[in-house]
Amino acid sequence: MRLQPSNRRRFLENATKVGAAFVAGAGAAQSQSPATEKPAPDDPTQAPGRPARPYGERSRFEKSVRNASGTGTSSLTPLQDLKGIITPSSLHFERHHAGVPDIDPSRHRLLIHGLVDRPLILTMDEIKRFPSVSRIHFMECSGNGFRARATAKTVQEGHGLVSCAEWTGVSLGLLLREAGVQSGANWIVAEGSDAAKMTRSVPLAKATKDVLLAYAQNGEAIRPEQGYPLRMFVPGWEGNIAIKWLRRIKVVDQPYMTREETSKYTDLMPDGTARQFTFEMDPKSLITYPSGGQKLAGAGFYEISGLAWSGRGAIRRVEVSTDAGRTWRDAELQTPVIPIAFTRFRYGWKWDGGEAVIQSRCTDEHGDVQPTLRDLVKARGENWGYHFDPIQPWRIQTDGSVLNALA
Amino acid sequence: MRLQPSNRRRFLENATKVGAAFVAGAGAAQSQSPATEKPAPDDPTQAPGRPARPYGERSRFEKSVRNASGTGTSSLTPLQDLKGIITPSSLHFERHHAGVPDIDPSRHRLLIHGLVDRPLILTMDEIKRFPSVSRIHFMECSGNGFRARATAKTVQEGHGLVSCAEWTGVSLGLLLREAGVQSGANWIVAEGSDAAKMTRSVPLAKATKDVLLAYAQNGEAIRPEQGYPLRMFVPGWEGNIAIKWLRRIKVVDQPYMTREETSKYTDLMPDGTARQFTFEMDPKSLITYPSGGQKLAGAGFYEISGLAWSGRGAIRRVEVSTDAGRTWRDAELQTPVIPIAFTRFRYGWKWDGGEAVIQSRCTDEHGDVQPTLRDLVKARGENWGYHFDPIQPWRIQTDGSVLNALA
Repeated sequence: MRLQPSNRRRFLENATKVGAAFVAGAGAAQSQSPATEKPAPDDPTQAPGRPARPYGERSRFEKSVRNASGTGTSSLTPLQDLKGIITPSSLHFERHHAGVPDIDPSRHRLLIHGLVDRPLILTMDEIKRFPSVSRIHFMECSGNGFRARATAKTVQEGHGLVSCAEWTGVSLGLLLREAGVQSGANWIVAEGSDAAKMTRSVPLAKATKDVLLAYAQNGEAIRPEQGYPLRMFVPGWEGNIAIKWLRRIKVVDQPYMTREETSKYTDLMPDGTARQFTFEMDPKSLITYPSGGQKLAGAGFYEISGLAWSGRGAIRRVEVSTDAGRTWRDAELQTPVIPIAFTRFRYGWKWDGGEAVIQSRCTDEHGDVQPTLRDLVKARGENWGYHFDPIQPWRIQTDGSVLNALA
Repeated sequence: MRLQPSNRRRFLENATKVGAAFVAGAGAAQSQSPATEKPAPDDPTQAPGRPARPYGERSRFEKSVRNASGTGTSSLTPLQDLKGIITPSSLHFERHHAGVPDIDPSRHRLLIHGLVDRPLILTMDEIKRFPSVSRIHFMECSGNGFRARATAKTVQEGHGLVSCAEWTGVSLGLLLREAGVQSGANWIVAEGSDAAKMTRSVPLAKATKDVLLAYAQNGEAIRPEQGYPLRMFVPGWEGNIAIKWLRRIKVVDQPYMTREETSKYTDLMPDGTARQFTFEMDPKSLITYPSGGQKLAGAGFYEISGLAWSGRGAIRRVEVSTDAGRTWRDAELQTPVIPIAFTRFRYGWKWDGGEAVIQSRCTDEHGDVQPTLRDLVKARGENWGYHFDPIQPWRIQTDGSVLNALA
């Protein structure tokens, strides 16, 4: 970001002001440590530190967590606390239909069968012998965002069912070539090892295009809540299709019309029909700072920052408005911009202390633009709860508090 | 990777063979679980899983760890277990000179002073108010690789002082513009809050070019062993310059000749003089699979995989030899190739079961090529221990065991 002289000076004024407040409040901040923990030393240079550890943990002063839903079937990424584009695996959102199973990888097997010449039963060691692929991709629950319209106060509550990681695995297309797909095959059905035996149908064209059977996430083994030891990762498509704890792929002639593609994960239209197999996640962006529930310290410079993504490819542009949508300006995009991944955007803003509505909208490489809530309701009616991707406005009040303005 | 028909068939033969071995050995694998832990259920679909968690952990079956050195002053990334390019923060290598201090971020301060118009004392909240930058970069200890020549049996023992993460922070150049650098200033001196008060000098040209004061790593707060709450991240330069637990930057006219740039971190040449301020890390690559200490199951297809990086920019090419250096072929590079970051390379190989020596060599965007050990010794002699980046050969024996061949 290029700074004009006036902006530079503004940074400094902020720094000085906030600094004074912090020096005065230092004692109070210290006393916020849990009573059971001893405070950090006043001068760390006077105390020898602890030695190296085999497997690291975050600082005891860091408290950001996934919000769990009441039933324990999902948890939400604290988007307001993320930096950059990688979501740490410990904070990647969860969504499961019968809890997280406990699986010994040495006893896990993957069966590939159905319309194939050579049915396969593969161990995890065998799966890892195949050529591997690594890609950085977001994953989003098809139901993400719906709560933003009603009760959600924060970006985490409203939109936390999305995260981004580097996934490594074997190409499903390669395994299907090994098995030998027979003529007449058009779909696959994938099944998990959880107590829900979560099952979804995927067109063969997608299965052989870019689907991974992923065994690693952010460099190490995939986490249990993400499908350890094996997950079918389906780039750009709604998260529930990415079957976790994958144990079976059957090559078939037509979709199996499972519960998760009939009574669930379909979109009811105004005319009473339902859209089925709405796989791709649409372009979406969110300002994560400042966002609902946060409070600005006072007028001055702020870096507006957020995330954008599209299930159809790369983000080409993110625009930000700080005047309730009257004018829009381009935000800066963090490079490299990776297709089907989080793109971090940043926009320098001088808040004058008055009431303001801030929001972002993105455009992907195909020219698809994130819609307003009004346009979305006009097109789809009011009966649906999935693929909710409208522009998210935040209202900043004169006291600095930030509210969800997606009424 | 494009597969020829013969290779495809080979995959399948391996799968079947190894599969039979695993079915027979399933009972034995299961009994390896620690006695204190109950085994995973035989059929995970018959047991409800556990609910969502606020902050996730890896599977109890995953045991990969950083090796700690005897003195506890460093720990080594298990490179042989990494996938893709991101090192999970829990496995990022450590190197500290007086242990890891315990720092309360609300009481941490950064002082910027010396040859500046406006000395600054900044809190962490103030630092986070400035515009931010995120970049994926490797970090390598200048002493990495030295042990590979003598005692190291594995790639972790020999080369584990290197890792790669997404770092987020504020541009040091921006903060220095805020402070107003005076004429006559040519260097900065950075000081940490550890008991060693680790201190290094950096030319002002580098400090204002691409140095970050980093407060986040892989999306969340930087880990304590990486400098929580603030680290001076110096892209492409030896890791010890990236001062952790950063508390002070003084703008000065010349380097301060601290202990870490005089008695340590200098390179003794054959003529008895020492090279000082050898900042940049040279191009280096390593095959991480198969690598020392591992054992191949038998003749057949293997994906040779590894990591390459250069402190001077992007990796342009990685070549692999499987015949003791007689012939070399291009490996496939994972995209996007990010400058000053790990680049994952992959190379499909059919092992015939005979003795083989495999190795990789990389070339960066400037045309700099990773040297052989012989060339390195010819140029630098035998008296130095830093910036050790020769080609690393691994010897595969007929029983499949892999040995360090860097004699």
